[in-house]
Amino acid sequence: MVIRDTTLIGTEAGCSTSLPNCYAATREATEALCAPLEPEDCVIQSMTCASPVKWHMAHTTWFFETFILCAGDGRYDVLQPEFRVLFNSYYNTIGAQFSRPHRGLLSRPTLSEVFAYRRHIDNAMHDRLENASPEELARIAPLLAVGLYHEQQHQELILTDIKHAFSCNPLEPVYRERENQRVTHAAGVDWVPFEAGVREVGHPGSEFAFDNEFPRHRVFLEPFVLASRLVTNREYLAFIEDGGYKKPELWLSDGWATVQSQAWRAPLYWQHDDGRWSVFTLAGRLPIDLDEPVCHTSYYEADAFARWSGARLATEAEWETSAASQAVDGNFLERGRLHPAPLDASVDRSDSRQMFGDVWEWTSSPYVAYPGYAPPVGALGEYNGKFMCNQFVLRGGSCATPRAHVRATYRNFFPPEARWQFAGIRLARSE
Amino acid sequence: MVIRDTTLIGTEAGCSTSLPNCYAATREATEALCAPLEPEDCVIQSMTCASPVKWHMAHTTWFFETFILCAGDGRYDVLQPEFRVLFNSYYNTIGAQFSRPHRGLLSRPTLSEVFAYRRHIDNAMHDRLENASPEELARIAPLLAVGLYHEQQHQELILTDIKHAFSCNPLEPVYRERENQRVTHAAGVDWVPFEAGVREVGHPGSEFAFDNEFPRHRVFLEPFVLASRLVTNREYLAFIEDGGYKKPELWLSDGWATVQSQAWRAPLYWQHDDGRWSVFTLAGRLPIDLDEPVCHTSYYEADAFARWSGARLATEAEWETSAASQAVDGNFLERGRLHPAPLDASVDRSDSRQMFGDVWEWTSSPYVAYPGYAPPVGALGEYNGKFMCNQFVLRGGSCATPRAHVRATYRNFFPPEARWQFAGIRLARSE
Amino acid sequence: MVIRDTTLIGTEAGCSTSLPNCYAATREATEALCAPLEPEDCVIQSMTCASPVKWHMAHTTWFFETFILCAGDGRYDVLQPEFRVLFNSYYNTIGAQFSRPHRGLLSRPTLSEVFAYRRHIDNAMHDRLENASPEELARIAPLLAVGLYHEQQHQELILTDIKHAFSCNPLEPVYRERENQRVTHAAGVDWVPFEAGVREVGHPGSEFAFDNEFPRHRVFLEPFVLASRLVTNREYLAFIEDGGYKKPELWLSDGWATVQSQAWRAPLYWQHDDGRWSVFTLAGRLPIDLDEPVCHTSYYEADAFARWSGARLATEAEWETSAASQAVDGNFLERGRLHPAPLDASVDRSDSRQMFGDVWEWTSSPYVAYPGYAPPVGALGEYNGKFMCNQFVLRGGSCATPRAHVRATYRNFFPPEARWQFAGIRLARSE
Amino acid sequence: MVIRDTTLIGTEAGCSTSLPNCYAATREATEALCAPLEPEDCVIQSMTCASPVKWHMAHTTWFFETFILCAGDGRYDVLQPEFRVLFNSYYNTIGAQFSRPHRGLLSRPTLSEVFAYRRHIDNAMHDRLENASPEELARIAPLLAVGLYHEQQHQELILTDIKHAFSCNPLEPVYRERENQRVTHAAGVDWVPFEAGVREVGHPGSEFAFDNEFPRHRVFLEPFVLASRLVTNREYLAFIEDGGYKKPELWLSDGWATVQSQAWRAPLYWQHDDGRWSVFTLAGRLPIDLDEPVCHTSYYEADAFARWSGARLATEAEWETSAASQAVDGNFLERGRLHPAPLDASVDRSDSRQMFGDVWEWTSSPYVAYPGYAPPVGALGEYNGKFMCNQFVLRGGSCATPRAHVRATYRNFFPPEARWQFAGIRLARSE
Repeated sequence: MVIRDTTLIGTEAGCSTSLPNCYAATREATEALCAPLEPEDCVIQSMTCASPVKWHMAHTTWFFETFILCAGDGRYDVLQPEFRVLFNSYYNTIGAQFSRPHRGLLSRPTLSEVFAYRRHIDNAMHDRLENASPEELARIAPLLAVGLYHEQQHQELILTDIKHAFSCNPLEPVYRERENQRVTHAAGVDWVPFEAGVREVGHPGSEFAFDNEFPRHRVFLEPFVLASRLVTNREYLAFIEDGGYKKPELWLSDGWATVQSQAWRAPLYWQHDDGRWSVFTLAGRLPIDLDEPVCHTSYYEADAFARWSGARLATEAEWETSAASQAVDGNFLERGRLHPAPLDASVDRSDSRQMFGDVWEWTSSPYVAYPGYAPPVGALGEYNGKFMCNQFVLRGGSCATPRAHVRATYRNFFPPEARWQFAGIRLARSE
Repeated sequence: MVIRDTTLIGTEAGCSTSLPNCYAATREATEALCAPLEPEDCVIQSMTCASPVKWHMAHTTWFFETFILCAGDGRYDVLQPEFRVLFNSYYNTIGAQFSRPHRGLLSRPTLSEVFAYRRHIDNAMHDRLENASPEELARIAPLLAVGLYHEQQHQELILTDIKHAFSCNPLEPVYRERENQRVTHAAGVDWVPFEAGVREVGHPGSEFAFDNEFPRHRVFLEPFVLASRLVTNREYLAFIEDGGYKKPELWLSDGWATVQSQAWRAPLYWQHDDGRWSVFTLAGRLPIDLDEPVCHTSYYEADAFARWSGARLATEAEWETSAASQAVDGNFLERGRLHPAPLDASVDRSDSRQMFGDVWEWTSSPYVAYPGYAPPVGALGEYNGKFMCNQFVLRGGSCATPRAHVRATYRNFFPPEARWQFAGIRLARSE
Repeated sequence: MVIRDTTLIGTEAGCSTSLPNCYAATREATEALCAPLEPEDCVIQSMTCASPVKWHMAHTTWFFETFILCAGDGRYDVLQPEFRVLFNSYYNTIGAQFSRPHRGLLSRPTLSEVFAYRRHIDNAMHDRLENASPEELARIAPLLAVGLYHEQQHQELILTDIKHAFSCNPLEPVYRERENQRVTHAAGVDWVPFEAGVREVGHPGSEFAFDNEFPRHRVFLEPFVLASRLVTNREYLAFIEDGGYKKPELWLSDGWATVQSQAWRAPLYWQHDDGRWSVFTLAGRLPIDLDEPVCHTSYYEADAFARWSGARLATEAEWETSAASQAVDGNFLERGRLHPAPLDASVDRSDSRQMFGDVWEWTSSPYVAYPGYAPPVGALGEYNGKFMCNQFVLRGGSCATPRAHVRATYRNFFPPEARWQFAGIRLARSE
Repeated sequence: MVIRDTTLIGTEAGCSTSLPNCYAATREATEALCAPLEPEDCVIQSMTCASPVKWHMAHTTWFFETFILCAGDGRYDVLQPEFRVLFNSYYNTIGAQFSRPHRGLLSRPTLSEVFAYRRHIDNAMHDRLENASPEELARIAPLLAVGLYHEQQHQELILTDIKHAFSCNPLEPVYRERENQRVTHAAGVDWVPFEAGVREVGHPGSEFAFDNEFPRHRVFLEPFVLASRLVTNREYLAFIEDGGYKKPELWLSDGWATVQSQAWRAPLYWQHDDGRWSVFTLAGRLPIDLDEPVCHTSYYEADAFARWSGARLATEAEWETSAASQAVDGNFLERGRLHPAPLDASVDRSDSRQMFGDVWEWTSSPYVAYPGYAPPVGALGEYNGKFMCNQFVLRGGSCATPRAHVRATYRNFFPPEARWQFAGIRLARSE
């Protein structure tokens, strides 16, 4: 992680005020996500790659404790030594980790004890920030930025993980009710052209960015076109009805094996009863809205759909080249919908629309290091670099991402079979 | 399940009063077990063969709803139709069941909703019992007896399951503190002899008993001797220190494979640190008390220990023949210790001691039907009969069993690798 | 293993001549089973519980080398030290064993090298037997008997294992062609009654028997009746057509789980195409003969069929009581059919027919030690005793068993899910 | 697969004569690889990703039968219809496939029957080639080229698969003895520099190449340096001795998980006894030669070693840029060594040495489509394209690759955990 200008941290993390205020606002936003939940909801872990809400709440706290409070000059005593192991996600440099698949067995600390842990660390952080010398502050600031961005990532995971957990319960609990607004002028799709040439991608470095966005470097792009909006449920349903899940020739070999072994017949959360499709959402089970962007697809499905369409996915460099000129705005977490939204042609008239928010967009780019990439020294070097294998890059943020979290150079990544994130599809073509 | 005399139900189930009072007392006893627990504790399921406390609370309630309230003359409306599936354990005759390994994902209904469910059913049951005609009461009484005995079984499971769940948490939560009383006159072991001959085993039938205890029948027993007390931790430790877990010749083939694959080195919950053994209990981690009966052994370990001792386990017929003449008294749930207790030679002077309470005693008898056995007609026929395969019989009850639940003919059963029950060892020998 | 009278070994093992001749005849019989096979056939292992033919050929040889040649006075040098490990099945007392699931990876030693190994050991055995002093012979004789009976067991396994391996090949190779004789007077079923009382079971001890048949002891049998013949394909087909594989209430819980997970719809080797049932046999795929005894059923299927029939399986004591008075004759390996045969009512007029040969009969008795049982001292103590867990006893021998191998007290045993042995069903009822 | 000039086929596939002669030579070369093997060796399959030798022999034959003989004008009758399924590797367009993990169960067809199958197809191919009209020949030629290159790929797999199979046998069979020549002037390592700029990679198209080498396209390379030779056993041993396999910080997260779960401590086939390292080779077990290139490493190990060295792996574009100017020469299959060879500084004086032959070189490039890539129409479209996921590109060929098979643009690919190929390491660095 490379911070070029620490004075901007407040703005970057989505706050416009002082560091302590920015810290407080982010922490508060996390806790606000728990408001609709019962203590019981916060314990469960529905699969290995998800975590209990309670664990997210504690782990983000552990992050500040470990990388700021404990890393300083020794004035800080850890609250509970076992937490060092219990809430360490994957930092071997820090030490041992509690077994990831068993996080759902940790009934203790209870939810209220986790909140007390948060209070304890928040107080210590507040003291530290208030009393830090300018030198100390300069040291802390970049770590604080990572900690706040990190917490934002877990805000999104709290929503995707509880959604998955709720979907496993036949009672289909509702996280938050919402009105379903119908769109009357659904946008058509255009193909936006891009010329060949050497382009620069990666973060230019004047503000905060994760280490995997560096260094900015040159790539050569052959000419391509990019779809002006996301793929809709209507289009995806046509793929299903054309037998998309039954035609091996449309799929990668690993994808087809997964379709067979997992009996995939539609995106995650879709259900077919009495000839009608519904989808489980954070507002409970709802009828499919055909104008919405399709969501909860794996890379395999995105790739197969693109092939069926006679198109392909964009590379991350293509995507970034297109996104670089656009404002970071859209259907983000703050809008409260917590679900992708149909594109209303009467409202949005930009060229490449829905680039930010709604759903993360699978690119065809495996997640690898940029030329000249070097991870940060120390434990934070484990944050991103060690996952550069068997994953694909997603871009643009989703309806569960805090708006201030995303930028054109931001690289998210998940394995090709992952479906529980808010991930969808934008098409591209070589010219 | 065969009830010969329904007037005795109250007494049988451990109450000395009316049916409604007996019902109320049993239900209350279950809920009292939850008192030390947090809502979070009641959600978790630490392995497939265990269930969340919340699930036990709901399932026992479902049992009365399904087999008494719904089975009557139709005056009853189910509280929530989904519960019919969610809290059905294994009754195919009743219908579908929620996936057993995933019971720990059910954050809803919450604990307080489960308590509300219990209140709702308790009220309906109270009405039904108060208002039943004599004929109706005669029909209900045997079902009520099964329901109450069933609830007692789950009282024990609540304790064994939460113990296992807590043991998975590095914080090692305490369920209930207890004083550890030292015994000063630990009892030695004698061998009580029994002559050869035709014996009668199985329930004679004048009181309630489970269907698997019937019919009473004749067996021929060759001469044998039975140890006068349970095997102690001291004796079991000698087995460990003699390399018991490293000598394949002491073990059944399946047992040895389990020792290898599970890396067993001691009974469940034992731990060896800095040369000292401790054991996780419902009162937290404590040093091993060498005079206590060894506990949380599998059948494989019980069998291997017996072979190492130059002895064997008793058959269930041998055990029952010995137990038939003894009073059902001992270290049961009501004593509140929730852990086996050393046998104090200065206090207990009977011949075969610790036959009841402390720990379930593994017998060498596979769990099969008695000659002439027939399961009850209907769904309750699934209660016991379909499990007569790949399990072994245990006898005598444990420190987590309600005293009124057990009798000399009572047959408990678990697979040979199960260790999370309070199960221990009594030796026997052929003469 | 207990030998009371070693002079009888020749006869016991099915020979009427001298020990060396008896040895030679048994060894020759094994090799004759390989005649229809190609070297490639002898390498493959189709599942963990089966072994390659080549391995059976070598292991039986290893048995004589290990327990007789190496165990003597040291005049013998092992042919190849690696064989000690490669061909040790499960004798921990002897030492390490090559991984059982990987026996099919041993292309070397080749088949001809295995034959050379057999020749080498046969020569050494011949020398040993020819030159042994009377004392030495007295020591060897019981081991020789075990070795020859052991080899007979593997003769049967060679056939069951190659049958399973061939069944995995879409080319469905034929082991040996046979004429299919139609039966014109298929026998009906009678119920043969037995009175209650104390009976003696187990081997009386004047001839060779395996250790698990000892000691002879008393049991009490309640009254029962036994079917006069085996269950036929016609009867089993009625069970299938009545939805036997779709009714959980007919099955043990473990059995139903197996039906579901393995998608069982009929006995092993049955296939349904275009409305017609066929069965894979050692003579290739043939139409079902409805008068033949049903074969290749698991214990679960035998038990479910019996329940569906309103009957049950016999206990091993009941079976033995019935068989004790009958001649050991029937459709054994020597008849060359290698498949169960319909019972021709015009020929066989005994009371309880097909007790010996055709198919092993599942009993309802878990495989456990007889009262007072003690395994032999030393490595041969691992032959039978350590498997007394999670298996059921089968009685009577099959069409792949050498006739001289079986007797009324003989106890075969397999896990309840095993189907690849020639195992079928005889019904019983309590009176 | 795109063929620009079919007249060159003969040369491409390593022959300098007519098409029929070229076909014959390639087929003969495959069979020559079986000469040292017994029929038993040709049956076994030691893991799912390997295949039996017999299967390779049949599958390559099936390839010509399916894509040339059956695809023509109908004059050809398939030899045995079952082979269509048995020897189809993964072509869903052609039809069903026999279960890949069970290829080792196919004792039939026997090895001699497979040879007869080869003769049958060879004769039919000879007839077809001799009698084809010029138009027919033009149609066949590119398919023939694919078939011959395909057969060459399986020549390499025959060697890697039998090596793995032999390594599972404690007898450690020798495929072919070889003399171990010692190198006296082992080469040091230099770093060859490359400037930044736009480069062209991919096949220019005047000769045969696989579809995945197309289209040739532009990439931008930042400046880098490339090691002048492969990493040696000496260097890799230093990594091991420095605790390389015990330091999570050196590994990708998936790589570290694999190290733990598979207990990796050294490259595949290495063994440590009494303080000395040996390696299993096609010439049996031999002491480690420290000057040889390290071999049988996974991508994970190559990546971790590079990180430990303060270097990285090259991208495939970097590798190809370097290799483009070099002659395709080196230690290939034809040299008969079947093992990587030390680089003798007194002999080889080129800049970047060992680029071809010895070991496949892991690149840091995930295997994905080139910009504008389109797979061939029809079943052969499944040859390469559907595997573009979760694999990494390897370049340069190995000691088991036919020399004529490889070129600078050739892209091999395997999953990052694969170790049984002859794969090693060349280092690179960003400047």
